[in-house]
Amino acid sequence: MKTMGRREVLKLGAAGSLAALAGPAAEGLEQPLKQTAQTAVARWEVFELVLDGPSEGNPFIDVELKAIFALGHRTVQVDGFYDGAGKYKVRFMPDAEGEWTYTTASATSALDVQTGKLLCEPAAAGAHGPVSVHNTHHFAYADGTPYFPFGTTCYAWVHQSEQLQRQTLEMLKGAPFNKIRMCVFPKSYEYNHNEPPFYPFERTVGGENDFARLNPAFFRHLEERIADLGRLGIEADLILFHPYDRWGYAAMPSEADDRYLRYVVARLSAFRNVWWSLANEYDVMKAKPVQDFDRFFHIVEQHDPVGHLRSIHHSGPMYDYGHPWVTHASLQSHDFDAAAGWLKAWRKPVVYDEVMYEGNLNRRWGNITGQEMTRRFWLGVIAGCYVTHGETYLDPDNLPDENSTPILLWSHGGALHGTSPERIGFLRKLVEETAARAGQNAARTGLEAGASEYYPNASSLDAAGKETQEILYYLDYHQPVYYDFPLPEGAWSAELIDPWEMTIRVIPGRFTGKSKVKLNGRPYQAVRFRRAG
Amino acid sequence: MKTMGRREVLKLGAAGSLAALAGPAAEGLEQPLKQTAQTAVARWEVFELVLDGPSEGNPFIDVELKAIFALGHRTVQVDGFYDGAGKYKVRFMPDAEGEWTYTTASATSALDVQTGKLLCEPAAAGAHGPVSVHNTHHFAYADGTPYFPFGTTCYAWVHQSEQLQRQTLEMLKGAPFNKIRMCVFPKSYEYNHNEPPFYPFERTVGGENDFARLNPAFFRHLEERIADLGRLGIEADLILFHPYDRWGYAAMPSEADDRYLRYVVARLSAFRNVWWSLANEYDVMKAKPVQDFDRFFHIVEQHDPVGHLRSIHHSGPMYDYGHPWVTHASLQSHDFDAAAGWLKAWRKPVVYDEVMYEGNLNRRWGNITGQEMTRRFWLGVIAGCYVTHGETYLDPDNLPDENSTPILLWSHGGALHGTSPERIGFLRKLVEETAARAGQNAARTGLEAGASEYYPNASSLDAAGKETQEILYYLDYHQPVYYDFPLPEGAWSAELIDPWEMTIRVIPGRFTGKSKVKLNGRPYQAVRFRRAG
Repeated sequence: MKTMGRREVLKLGAAGSLAALAGPAAEGLEQPLKQTAQTAVARWEVFELVLDGPSEGNPFIDVELKAIFALGHRTVQVDGFYDGAGKYKVRFMPDAEGEWTYTTASATSALDVQTGKLLCEPAAAGAHGPVSVHNTHHFAYADGTPYFPFGTTCYAWVHQSEQLQRQTLEMLKGAPFNKIRMCVFPKSYEYNHNEPPFYPFERTVGGENDFARLNPAFFRHLEERIADLGRLGIEADLILFHPYDRWGYAAMPSEADDRYLRYVVARLSAFRNVWWSLANEYDVMKAKPVQDFDRFFHIVEQHDPVGHLRSIHHSGPMYDYGHPWVTHASLQSHDFDAAAGWLKAWRKPVVYDEVMYEGNLNRRWGNITGQEMTRRFWLGVIAGCYVTHGETYLDPDNLPDENSTPILLWSHGGALHGTSPERIGFLRKLVEETAARAGQNAARTGLEAGASEYYPNASSLDAAGKETQEILYYLDYHQPVYYDFPLPEGAWSAELIDPWEMTIRVIPGRFTGKSKVKLNGRPYQAVRFRRAG
Repeated sequence: MKTMGRREVLKLGAAGSLAALAGPAAEGLEQPLKQTAQTAVARWEVFELVLDGPSEGNPFIDVELKAIFALGHRTVQVDGFYDGAGKYKVRFMPDAEGEWTYTTASATSALDVQTGKLLCEPAAAGAHGPVSVHNTHHFAYADGTPYFPFGTTCYAWVHQSEQLQRQTLEMLKGAPFNKIRMCVFPKSYEYNHNEPPFYPFERTVGGENDFARLNPAFFRHLEERIADLGRLGIEADLILFHPYDRWGYAAMPSEADDRYLRYVVARLSAFRNVWWSLANEYDVMKAKPVQDFDRFFHIVEQHDPVGHLRSIHHSGPMYDYGHPWVTHASLQSHDFDAAAGWLKAWRKPVVYDEVMYEGNLNRRWGNITGQEMTRRFWLGVIAGCYVTHGETYLDPDNLPDENSTPILLWSHGGALHGTSPERIGFLRKLVEETAARAGQNAARTGLEAGASEYYPNASSLDAAGKETQEILYYLDYHQPVYYDFPLPEGAWSAELIDPWEMTIRVIPGRFTGKSKVKLNGRPYQAVRFRRAG
């Protein structure tokens, strides 16, 4: 028995509206439903069409639903998805103002040829659209605003208690991070032994997965968290597969992998703050040859109408980041000397997404100092790349063992304990201010690693349509009492920056050409030159 | 007119005797000459035969002199050399006790068929013979005593004022170094602008070189310094060519190169503390293709009867250290991750001879901290290799420019100013004590880099004929509060070593197998495990 075509349209405008997607489970955030075919939605917000359809059989497999959105001669095809209880949904993120029309298409008559209009209005204040690659090695929002990723890592935060998830969001509110690496699937690993609040597939009481039936509650919960991040201006770098698993998600049949991917993309691609990270440590997933990930990339690319960023993270051997379907590199490395070669070879942004974690863990990847983390951020940024933070601090007075589940930011979220985040925020501010001074021409606002004349560690930044305006040197473990900086022609002012103390001191004088600049003979300093007229 | 065959025999025994080679220029150190064909000389000291011969023409080119030394059925051929003023010399370092005989051979009749005997007596206390490769990746003296190179660098110290040379020797007397990298030729470079006290070739008043005539006074002075080093137990890692030159020595004709090499080898190979470093930064010597250095190696190997250690130092591209004529690698690198691969590929000792210098110079290679230098020593030693120190401190209150000649240890010698030497001495003592505990079987006394079970940074040391006796971990920038060390079977004691504070603290307990050891959560610590019965 079919439930016939009742149509609900959710208009999800402005910043607060993403949370509405959480559905009845969300706390008082639901928008009123509108029974109208003419709905207004702000640019880059989520428009949601809800249709009643069949609930018998297996709607995840039996029913297909698409919609074509059109603006003038432009059409955008979007996949719908089954949200349980006979509800079918189509989500669409309009990226251009104007009156869009839509028509659904389905072999299921109740879902076929449902039509309507939506008026895309100007973007809400603070909404810049999805992030994409810009200026070869850099990123920008759709409205041209530069986006410099300063991310952190909380792999399994959405799989913790509601209280801990709230603490994570509180932490993020006060932290300098604008991207978070997080897994769709729950995580099973040392220090990660808890069961998640939701499972992505239906399960028997005995814990058997039914990979043919996705669990809408799981995804509604995930969407709520993505919407929470969106309100904080944080990009969700969503990890679609990972090897740390005891439930079977790392070794599903190919049909289940592909169905899951299409479902995730159909549900989430209308969220402007989503990035696709095809896997974490893909090479550790022994059940999946690299060709599987090639196919996953193709599925995502084919079904995502927005074209969100796509990458994949490795442990040992890298995925070939030169493939045209990869938008940027997502490295596990702290080899910043190699950055120039990689930037040149791939002609894409390079994000060092795992440079080890600040902490005191009994694992070599989880016990670097705040100083070393700060240093790695500087080295990465000066190399013209980006770096991602992570933290793994155990309580030294209450040592757990690997079979315990202490709260470690790296996986569980929670509070920050380290010394690097404040310094990462300082660096982010430096980069953003530099970009702002260079002007609104996004094609010029990325820090580009120094040519040899700026050796050893220097980045330059070109202002809109003009020659180099600022040059930033990071001296790393070098502690010269003076240095002969090879400045371009013209007059330059100089500042001595202490990345740890977070101070910026003017070095008196004006400099031009090869310039002898007296320094303080301390290591881990930076020097910034700016054009002085 | 020939000066006919008066024969002088210098017996140069015991520690003090090397200085006698300095000749009349030395201050009161000359040994009495003996007019006898039966001379006693201690093992590994220098026996010198002095013959009168022609002084007209060009004796450096016109006259050839060799001697055959025999002990039983064994013969050793040694080249003689012209020492000016009609004096010809043959030097020989007997390496075995007993009654040696010798006979000279020359087309010049005054130098031909001069015969005699020398009685090689037991080595003086503290004389262990020349150093050679031992146990594949390590070194030992000829008597089997392990030698662990902890070197420093004073490239042009013999080309400074006599007073500064004395200061350098005083510094070395109190320093932890047992090897010094030093150039035969004077050096012209930034901060190196002085003229040397001696030139290696005869010169016209206008400064034109006569490459056909070597300057014996130059070499007598050099020998005096090598003897001084010998008395301090320091190996002279003699750099035979280098690119930093304004006199023409870096671009001599091939005949001059080869004649110079044979001359140096004839004069110096009898000094037991000599190593041959074919060049510093050979690849920067634009006048010399790599084939020239191949030929230089062959000349040295062919003419050196002792078989002193032979290597060559690079700037950018490495010389092929796999060549059979290279005894060990002499790297400019601080890539210690690559050490395992190099050790395996070359099956030779690897010495990181240039890891940048501690200091505050306006050059990236000359301004690392004492902490970083200490760290590099630990990383190198734990990797199963060796590391060489250097220092470049400017006086921050009296900044020179590159056209000045301040006294920088790296090139000029003089006093130490840095913080790393004391810590290098601490590490040297650790290594030597570990070796001493392992016993006198030198084939077992080198620190071998950890197999993967000792990851991340660990070396093990096997005692004579027994299984692993000690394991040394260096935690570098890692700061775990505890770590699960994968110890071999048996009972182990543990100590926490602070390489900077130079402390060794016992960690209570006995450990076996995979062992959870609580640490102090500080970076740059080391942990040593020793078998506890």
